[in-house]
Amino acid sequence: MLILHRLIKNLSKLPGIGQKSAARLAYFLLKADPIFVDALSKDIRELKQKIKNCNICGNYTETDHCLICSDPARNTKLICIVEEPKDIQVIESIHEYNGLYHVLMGAISPIDGIGPENLTISTLISRIDNNKIEEIIIATNPTIEGDTTSAYITNIVKQKSILITKLALGLPVGGDLEYTDKLTVAKAFKGRNRLS
Amino acid sequence: MLILHRLIKNLSKLPGIGQKSAARLAYFLLKADPIFVDALSKDIRELKQKIKNCNICGNYTETDHCLICSDPARNTKLICIVEEPKDIQVIESIHEYNGLYHVLMGAISPIDGIGPENLTISTLISRIDNNKIEEIIIATNPTIEGDTTSAYITNIVKQKSILITKLALGLPVGGDLEYTDKLTVAKAFKGRNRLS
Repeated sequence: MLILHRLIKNLSKLPGIGQKSAARLAYFLLKADPIFVDALSKDIRELKQKIKNCNICGNYTETDHCLICSDPARNTKLICIVEEPKDIQVIESIHEYNGLYHVLMGAISPIDGIGPENLTISTLISRIDNNKIEEIIIATNPTIEGDTTSAYITNIVKQKSILITKLALGLPVGGDLEYTDKLTVAKAFKGRNRLS
Repeated sequence: MLILHRLIKNLSKLPGIGQKSAARLAYFLLKADPIFVDALSKDIRELKQKIKNCNICGNYTETDHCLICSDPARNTKLICIVEEPKDIQVIESIHEYNGLYHVLMGAISPIDGIGPENLTISTLISRIDNNKIEEIIIATNPTIEGDTTSAYITNIVKQKSILITKLALGLPVGGDLEYTDKLTVAKAFKGRNRLS
């Protein structure tokens, strides 16, 4: 197969990229600045070699400890628990949280054969036991798997004298009540806040 | 800058890929099969080195002559004239045309300083003169630049005793051949009009 067709085929395997977008990207790369194209190729190749998981929290990092764990300005009494390393970027982007993270590396999912022992829950417990943690914020996805994982962790941690919180469920900002699913509306209703 | 952030930044420079899609792609690549990722990186790197323009028609090729020019089953009496190599794929995809191609490598655009001398029009004329061409089909984009180029070529070629046709204006005016749906391209191809 010609390299151009193979590249289009491979690009179309990427998430959100269809056949037409893949062709558009390939033709763009053919005409693009060679320095840019080489840099892109190199970064894609080296991505997996250079990036590993932080020894402490599991975040993506190029060194042993990630930028967040090695930042002395972070509040080390707080741990926000997420399923995947990429979830950290989402929470960092809101600029509301200054604590540490813990990446579970997934969520409990019996169907996929993922139990608590496949996640980094034991590491989380030792982090809580060995550091003066005051609060854990559970930020698993609002799915059956995420909720199961959240319940499991809560059950283990609740006898320790630390605060356990979980991200609020409710209407998405900028959303439309009419087009929000019933379950979300129900959760938003239950979690309604007093205004006066 | 971390390789992950640099990759996200570079991916977001690609056409149709925003900041969020770029992050999604980068995280996908981090978890993807290493063999796939290496192949993708290699193809991107080698794309420009391996792909050149066909000596005859200007189509993308890895050898001196492209697959179309070296295919004995093609009708060598027909030449379809396009602006860019990628336009050839669009016309090939409708499976209506069995002739040869000629890539102009652009269109006349005084604003961008592109005149007829910057295009492969002289090569086109020698191809017409030296081969028994019966028809040229002008498939430039339905834009001012494409129409100007079409008029220029018609003017030069009309004294020769060959048929000059142009894709029908079933194409959306101001659009781009690359992004036109196959059916419209097929209709336009079938309804091509005689210019002289």
